[in-house]
Amino acid sequence: MFSSEIYSQRRLALLSAMQGESGVMLFLGNVDSPAQYRDNCYKFRQDSNFLYFFGLDTPGLAAVVDLDNGTQTLYGTDDDIDDIIWNGPTPTVREMADAAGVDNAAAYSRLASDLKGRKVHFAPVSGYWNRMEMASLTGLGPQEVISSGKAGCKAASGKMVRAIIALRLVKSGEEIALMDKACVLGQEMHKMARCGVKVGAVEQDIVGAMEGYALAKGWGVSFPTILTQHGEIFHCHSHANTVQPGKLMVIDAGVESNEHYASDFTRTYPTGGKFTQKQREIYQIVCDCNNYAFSLVRPGVAYRDVHIAVAERMLSGLADLGLVHGDAAEMASEGICGLFMPHGLGHNMGLDVHDMEDLGENLVGYDPDQARSSQLGLGSLRMARRLVPGNVITDEPGIYFIPALIEKWRNEGTGRGFVDFDRLREYYDFGGIRLEDDLLVTPDGARRLGGERLPITPDEVEDAMDVD
Amino acid sequence: MFSSEIYSQRRLALLSAMQGESGVMLFLGNVDSPAQYRDNCYKFRQDSNFLYFFGLDTPGLAAVVDLDNGTQTLYGTDDDIDDIIWNGPTPTVREMADAAGVDNAAAYSRLASDLKGRKVHFAPVSGYWNRMEMASLTGLGPQEVISSGKAGCKAASGKMVRAIIALRLVKSGEEIALMDKACVLGQEMHKMARCGVKVGAVEQDIVGAMEGYALAKGWGVSFPTILTQHGEIFHCHSHANTVQPGKLMVIDAGVESNEHYASDFTRTYPTGGKFTQKQREIYQIVCDCNNYAFSLVRPGVAYRDVHIAVAERMLSGLADLGLVHGDAAEMASEGICGLFMPHGLGHNMGLDVHDMEDLGENLVGYDPDQARSSQLGLGSLRMARRLVPGNVITDEPGIYFIPALIEKWRNEGTGRGFVDFDRLREYYDFGGIRLEDDLLVTPDGARRLGGERLPITPDEVEDAMDVD
Repeated sequence: MFSSEIYSQRRLALLSAMQGESGVMLFLGNVDSPAQYRDNCYKFRQDSNFLYFFGLDTPGLAAVVDLDNGTQTLYGTDDDIDDIIWNGPTPTVREMADAAGVDNAAAYSRLASDLKGRKVHFAPVSGYWNRMEMASLTGLGPQEVISSGKAGCKAASGKMVRAIIALRLVKSGEEIALMDKACVLGQEMHKMARCGVKVGAVEQDIVGAMEGYALAKGWGVSFPTILTQHGEIFHCHSHANTVQPGKLMVIDAGVESNEHYASDFTRTYPTGGKFTQKQREIYQIVCDCNNYAFSLVRPGVAYRDVHIAVAERMLSGLADLGLVHGDAAEMASEGICGLFMPHGLGHNMGLDVHDMEDLGENLVGYDPDQARSSQLGLGSLRMARRLVPGNVITDEPGIYFIPALIEKWRNEGTGRGFVDFDRLREYYDFGGIRLEDDLLVTPDGARRLGGERLPITPDEVEDAMDVD
Repeated sequence: MFSSEIYSQRRLALLSAMQGESGVMLFLGNVDSPAQYRDNCYKFRQDSNFLYFFGLDTPGLAAVVDLDNGTQTLYGTDDDIDDIIWNGPTPTVREMADAAGVDNAAAYSRLASDLKGRKVHFAPVSGYWNRMEMASLTGLGPQEVISSGKAGCKAASGKMVRAIIALRLVKSGEEIALMDKACVLGQEMHKMARCGVKVGAVEQDIVGAMEGYALAKGWGVSFPTILTQHGEIFHCHSHANTVQPGKLMVIDAGVESNEHYASDFTRTYPTGGKFTQKQREIYQIVCDCNNYAFSLVRPGVAYRDVHIAVAERMLSGLADLGLVHGDAAEMASEGICGLFMPHGLGHNMGLDVHDMEDLGENLVGYDPDQARSSQLGLGSLRMARRLVPGNVITDEPGIYFIPALIEKWRNEGTGRGFVDFDRLREYYDFGGIRLEDDLLVTPDGARRLGGERLPITPDEVEDAMDVD
């Protein structure tokens, strides 16, 4: 964790944003989450807001910041002598409070009574235990303390949520150093993955080697690894397949560092080591779109506009191939790009890979004067805001040929006059391509986080696979 | 999963054990569990009872078996067209019901109303979502539907719980084949770990490589890996240390196969590759105890008696070294062994590494005529039952020198006259040793599960480390 001063300053900034409010702010840390039975738990992951404001990476903690008098209290449970015999010596709640720069330490058992009669400000929670505990501490229902969709959580404190978002959206120098580190780890993991992409290999073997690296060098993967020869299917859960010749392997994966900062990269590989002409044509468009987005990123630019510019570039490339016909700008504004890229260009990244997603996607990713589109593609954009230095965002254009979606558009008449549905039939077994880097917005533009960029042009990719 | 007949037969056996009862049996599958935000979840793990009786490894399912008319219904949610576009085609609830040999398929949204007015029999649940859902479906509180300690869950159906335990305690031929496979994977993972134990190595690197192997070849590790140079501390969560010379490295780890059967092995390595004389003396006692336990395991023998016999053997060895004085049998019955081995000799293993622990440790591990001891060590024994063919148990004696515990005994006068507390001071920095194999009870004795036994004698271990 950082020095206690950093956490104290963050809480001070939050307190200052809450001026005029009365009551307390409650921060609930996470507990261990059972995988099978109660004592066989997943690897502990602290709540990200708790990490940001207190830095303590231990289950079973809570903290209260009093808005009326500024008092701050850490709640937890000290080990008894039997715990020490079985678990060895661990820090006391008092020692943890010191590490976080918190004045008061108290027994967790006192938390509920200390909150009695106070107005409790909170940010929405995610885990199932947190829902029960937050509901019990606030008198609300477990469904009321979570984000119900993109708009966030009605019962949560809007002021507190907006203040947290404002703070966490802008990464400090210390945070950027850790994010660079997480990205270097993510790139190393991707190199390892690339070496595993050989015809006949079992996907699970590649995924296991990647996740093993993430566990050896960091907390683990920052989200369940996507490694699939069906890139057109966005949520893949099985890795039972063997690598087939002539396919495109999409690998979308990241490492969460031991300090819990995320990285998130995507590369797409020709499974036999060489792109076909058809694959290379589509790949080149995606690669151009990735580089084009990077060239547009700078303070003051809305990432929504970068998405739209990329959509136009993508449609222009697809028009050159004869898959769509018409003016690229007109097609972009008609939302034609959503047929090929139904997702957004990117998202915020930080302590969460989709940073703060459960605080409410619209609050996190949209400026107050920006409305979310209902178009397929643009409507899925998680980060639309005008960029400021310190923002960390992903740049991840993709082109997919999703037969069920293409058929739906054809049947419904969507895109008629622009989309060459007959030509698209030739692409029904193509799969998909996505290429993703992680960007830091700097005072005068952008920088790709991490070390040397992973090979990305078709030639670079083929050369790298040739050496592997 | 197995063929549908196997699951049908298991449910038939359970139905037959429930004869005379009215109402329904409810089985709640697991859902995805958030690690950070709602859509960033840990790797899905199905509820073990649900796996045993239905075999379906998919989140969001439930099943009801009607005791009044034998009707069986699987509840789940079919994908809509948007789900198919994003997730690709997945099996329908009807198809999953067929795979499990279940007659009826229904929408999950119907479950609560279908249960209205029926007596609901259930086994205690573990995960936090399951607590909320089971509480909501039964009208009980979330604290009432879980095991509250070793005795189990009062509100659960005792008859159903005992019937499940009786079935799951005896592994079938198909299950044994899968457990052998899980054990082979566990042994391979241990070999990999052994190769990593070099002075100067970072523990996290070894753990990452192990867990990567478990993910490549199976579901993952069957419990959080214990890899520690402080074997005397039983619950270790940090792997930040580097390997120091002259220490004993305890590695207690297992693989859960893709079919969700567990393995669980422990070996202890001298970090420099060679045991000191002092280490070798203690190690030899533990090794002898492991082999001795194996020699005693056969149908009809209570594992409680094996634990006691091993305790006697251990004390006899410690007496030879002058660390305790007195008649080994008398010391064993006085519970002196608990100072050195505060845990039990072993536990049941199957779909859970501590099989069925949350159904109630005493119900799972003790025959109705066996009372749990209050002695340190024997009182921690998870498996005391008279053995029957098909039981799978661990054999894991250990000797630890826990300064806080030794001081407690000395101060309280426990073990006075038997324990040489002065001599024990020389062992305060010793650490601990544990050696664990997985045993199948056969009709005429026992068999160690897995492939070739991991090196276990001091010479075998040194030779293996020399080659690595």
